[in-house]
Amino acid sequence: MDELDVLCVGNAIVDIIARCEENFLVENAITKGAMNLIDADRAELLYSRMGPAIEASGGSAGNTAAGIASFGGKAAFFGKVAHDQLGKIYDHDIKAQGVVFNTRPLDGPPPTARSMIFVTPDGERSMNTYLGACVELGPEDVDAQIVAASKVTYFEGYLWDPPRAKEAIRNSANIAHANGREVSMTLSDPFCVDRYRDEFLDLMRSGTVDIVFANEHEAMSLYQTSSLEAAVDALEADCRLAIVTRGENGSIVARKGERVSVSAIDIAELVDTTGAGDLYAAGFLHGYTNNRSMEDCANLGSLAAGLVIQQIGPRPHGSLRQAAIDTGLGT
Amino acid sequence: MDELDVLCVGNAIVDIIARCEENFLVENAITKGAMNLIDADRAELLYSRMGPAIEASGGSAGNTAAGIASFGGKAAFFGKVAHDQLGKIYDHDIKAQGVVFNTRPLDGPPPTARSMIFVTPDGERSMNTYLGACVELGPEDVDAQIVAASKVTYFEGYLWDPPRAKEAIRNSANIAHANGREVSMTLSDPFCVDRYRDEFLDLMRSGTVDIVFANEHEAMSLYQTSSLEAAVDALEADCRLAIVTRGENGSIVARKGERVSVSAIDIAELVDTTGAGDLYAAGFLHGYTNNRSMEDCANLGSLAAGLVIQQIGPRPHGSLRQAAIDTGLGT
Repeated sequence: MDELDVLCVGNAIVDIIARCEENFLVENAITKGAMNLIDADRAELLYSRMGPAIEASGGSAGNTAAGIASFGGKAAFFGKVAHDQLGKIYDHDIKAQGVVFNTRPLDGPPPTARSMIFVTPDGERSMNTYLGACVELGPEDVDAQIVAASKVTYFEGYLWDPPRAKEAIRNSANIAHANGREVSMTLSDPFCVDRYRDEFLDLMRSGTVDIVFANEHEAMSLYQTSSLEAAVDALEADCRLAIVTRGENGSIVARKGERVSVSAIDIAELVDTTGAGDLYAAGFLHGYTNNRSMEDCANLGSLAAGLVIQQIGPRPHGSLRQAAIDTGLGT
Repeated sequence: MDELDVLCVGNAIVDIIARCEENFLVENAITKGAMNLIDADRAELLYSRMGPAIEASGGSAGNTAAGIASFGGKAAFFGKVAHDQLGKIYDHDIKAQGVVFNTRPLDGPPPTARSMIFVTPDGERSMNTYLGACVELGPEDVDAQIVAASKVTYFEGYLWDPPRAKEAIRNSANIAHANGREVSMTLSDPFCVDRYRDEFLDLMRSGTVDIVFANEHEAMSLYQTSSLEAAVDALEADCRLAIVTRGENGSIVARKGERVSVSAIDIAELVDTTGAGDLYAAGFLHGYTNNRSMEDCANLGSLAAGLVIQQIGPRPHGSLRQAAIDTGLGT
């Protein structure tokens, strides 16, 4: 098959997005800014308390795949939906963006995953995810041809939550490396890091993962330090290439002695931070798989992240390829 | 039961919204700016050609009910969804907005209705509606207590498309009038008017309907005239209260010799016209059922319409009650 730029592997989730006030999070014991895992009963309860919402395909690695395709890159996605209406929406949206997506949907329950995302007036999103069909993703869903054809296989740390997805990742990493490809991951969320710290460190130190994306909170959580500098140093030692995002303070790229820092783009209005990290990774990996400089890669990440936080929903409504051209980052 | 301001009756539809270029409409034979009725096969075909989308509860009269509730009014809604995920989303969103909604969902096929809405760069929306479960709305879905309790029963002309909804409307109108209440309708769409011209005229001339909402194209279609003035004159003669909306040119209220014209509100950016007429009706009827002046009613309509066209989706994300207060139209 034709070479692909990036294969993304993650939980296939439809987002249900509504605004709320700060006190709603407190009253409902939702950890602000985090991905809160919930079961079916709590999903029902929170939905009953949620205001009118809109729905949009989401999921961290799926958003990254969509972002890469929007830049004009060749992306594929592995993730598990169910044979239901939300699954059909997910399938439609990612394919309509031009992403290769062939994972067999789950017959029967549980249903397609959904995340209730509450956006507070400051633009911060707090996610409440019912994993549904995602818990069935396993090694049988790895299409070895796609892995072998992809310059980078990228996965989300969130995949350590469902039971067998990590097997799919380990298999994929083996196939990727056997074909001279690279493997990348995002640490996903500080609490996710807390749940799987030792395994994530082992992925990096064993060479299973080559490239790591983390925001500053995740990086500091990984090494249990309050020093960003110490966390970046440790990441740099533990993997071939580390990228640490810092929100409005830009991002840092660390590659075995080489450091690049870029700033965030100026934004008119912060609407909804959902997808910021996912789209940063999309921009960076799009640049990376097109042999751009580290600075260009980071600036492409800043661009995509900066655009997605100025709209509601986790995937950019406009063309990132055009945005890159318009800002002088195109090729 | 407690008195309600407005009962809205309409097709319960989930919107699937994506942007497209002008030539997409031409290539797919979609009538621009109109509501195109489609069958299940064409729905599949168009969806396969549609870009990544977002989903939001819609439906004309449902949007009006949500708008009235957002203003702080007491609204109810009759409409038919199916027992499926889209139906659950519809049910959630309208109830979460504070609208009374008890219509029994349909067991088994067809599924909940959806409308694929293509928004062109000029902000105009072109709708492609698969009616699904809406075709099962009938007189058995009329809750006489709610009709009797509602100051105004408002329905959409689109209800003449499904087979038995008109029976539900005629029953509701009888109940409303027997209880000293008023009945209102929107003409919905110029092509809808073309399909049911004689029946719509009969509804007005027989006194089944007291208050008519139309945009200028619908009004001129009703009387098959290219003169807006002639259409408004004819509407004024045919019903007790007529309101004609004119997009950026504001609106005209005609009540047996009394004429009021108001302007549209200034908008920063026209994003998506979906819901403009529905929200105008919401603002007007909220004022009307609170005994506001004709001018206030029309200005409340302009406010709600002006806000909804500056966002994606058919229902305002913010509180219309607060918007009315902020613009000096609150009470």
